[in-house]
Amino acid sequence: MLITTGSQQALDLIGKVLIDSGSRILVETPTYLGALQAFSPMEPNVVSVASDEEGPIVEDFAAKAGTGADKARFMYLLPNFQNPTGRTMTEARRAALVAKAKELGIPLVEDNPYGDLWFDEQPPLPITARNPDGGLYMGSFSKVLAPGLRLGYVVAPKNVYPKLLQAKQAADLHTPSFNQRLVAEVLKGNFLDRHVPQIRKLYKEQCQAMVAALEREMSGLDVKWSRPAGGMFLWLRLPEGIDTAKLLPKAVDRNIAFVPGAAFYADNADVRTMRLSFVTASVEQINTAIAALAATIKDELAAKA
Amino acid sequence: MLITTGSQQALDLIGKVLIDSGSRILVETPTYLGALQAFSPMEPNVVSVASDEEGPIVEDFAAKAGTGADKARFMYLLPNFQNPTGRTMTEARRAALVAKAKELGIPLVEDNPYGDLWFDEQPPLPITARNPDGGLYMGSFSKVLAPGLRLGYVVAPKNVYPKLLQAKQAADLHTPSFNQRLVAEVLKGNFLDRHVPQIRKLYKEQCQAMVAALEREMSGLDVKWSRPAGGMFLWLRLPEGIDTAKLLPKAVDRNIAFVPGAAFYADNADVRTMRLSFVTASVEQINTAIAALAATIKDELAAKA
Repeated sequence: MLITTGSQQALDLIGKVLIDSGSRILVETPTYLGALQAFSPMEPNVVSVASDEEGPIVEDFAAKAGTGADKARFMYLLPNFQNPTGRTMTEARRAALVAKAKELGIPLVEDNPYGDLWFDEQPPLPITARNPDGGLYMGSFSKVLAPGLRLGYVVAPKNVYPKLLQAKQAADLHTPSFNQRLVAEVLKGNFLDRHVPQIRKLYKEQCQAMVAALEREMSGLDVKWSRPAGGMFLWLRLPEGIDTAKLLPKAVDRNIAFVPGAAFYADNADVRTMRLSFVTASVEQINTAIAALAATIKDELAAKA
Repeated sequence: MLITTGSQQALDLIGKVLIDSGSRILVETPTYLGALQAFSPMEPNVVSVASDEEGPIVEDFAAKAGTGADKARFMYLLPNFQNPTGRTMTEARRAALVAKAKELGIPLVEDNPYGDLWFDEQPPLPITARNPDGGLYMGSFSKVLAPGLRLGYVVAPKNVYPKLLQAKQAADLHTPSFNQRLVAEVLKGNFLDRHVPQIRKLYKEQCQAMVAALEREMSGLDVKWSRPAGGMFLWLRLPEGIDTAKLLPKAVDRNIAFVPGAAFYADNADVRTMRLSFVTASVEQINTAIAALAATIKDELAAKA
């Protein structure tokens, strides 16, 4: 295990070690924007694997795997409460994907910053736990303790670890030892055992409030949304003809904001999508914000009609 | 100014922004190993500029600058108490190099982690101060406060800054805000004004002790060393026929260690060189260690005779 300056740095190091210019890598549709950004300096050929509500579709994974020199270096996955969609890969999909990855010899790079933030039940076993030698696993203290400490980690197979360590030293010598000691002290007590259930409860209430507000406010509109079982994000798809990037300034005029979905696609962006976060707003603010979002959408539809 | 996770990270970000695969970049002879490591994932063509005790030789800088698509992206410099040699670029050399760099349009990347650690007098003005739009400047709190906080910074021209910021976000999102606040609090008081003179005094005593020990112990041997005016390092060159990398295990047998010099060269390594650090050992330990080093060298020479 290598300690990293947040799990974002693990993405940067993995890119440096596993990607050469032009290397094929596979990602979910959509995928975490920060991963695309972290990999991009190494100039990979990023290929999207078609995905549904259960995760990436195994047949398309196999179809996009590539062969010979163009065989995918890895597939990047965020199986629990995905950023941006909030979706969770099912047990069956994990098992099938791992089996296919083993068969094809493609490493799975598993990013799990939100796994502890489940609402009612723990997500299925990590992908890497099913195939420890065939993948890398990233975790973080940013979502359960504090993002401002920048403390994450990556678990890597024995043949990859020394290269990651070398890349780590070149990137920033080491993760602040002061922060490592501080978190080690926190972990000795049972603070996280008390703290994490409180976050789960709070985020669940906020998520439920957002879903309820969407059901109330978006009624009659052709708007679809995910129903996350944990994490921080919810994914919306608006009616035909609306580009959420163009909608954003109009939303900002109403004092609300979202992340337009296009940035989360490696290719063929669905411009009707957006990411909402439910964790930094109170239930009252969520209710006001979703009403304002619905009004923005209705205005846009009226203007187009 | 961009805050970085130690100034080592600034090197990583500069590499990502300014280097494409095959880009020519210029370095001193020898140069900081960590810079070579930070740039290497971007696969540059690293070209050494011949250097003497005053710094890089301006004529060779011009000769190695390259033209057209192969024009050097930048020259990397560590002008004060260089790692590894301990040398300081003179005022005259700085002025001449800046004039030539302006003429050729080659940015100078200036790394200054040790500048505050002068013994008797402040080093000349930074290179970037003479040409703010033509270069980047890196600083660090690692050497004056604590390396374990990983707090550094880079000052960049307006056309480079936004790209560095983007690379920074992709690399680790942000430098630990907790550490930034902590150092900001320290800076409010006059701790550094009291602390840095103490470090200077201590390091000067240790450096003087090491030079005195070298004069005493290496007498009669064809060994040469630098006489740093600050910083942490001293550079040794051993007699013909000795490869310091091969000497290291024998030194370790005598409970001492050094860094073989070859790693600090981008090309044509001088295997007779080594880097010594004088800041982590007491005067007594320095005396014992230099005596042990002399004995190791004498044994090696006797074995070769």
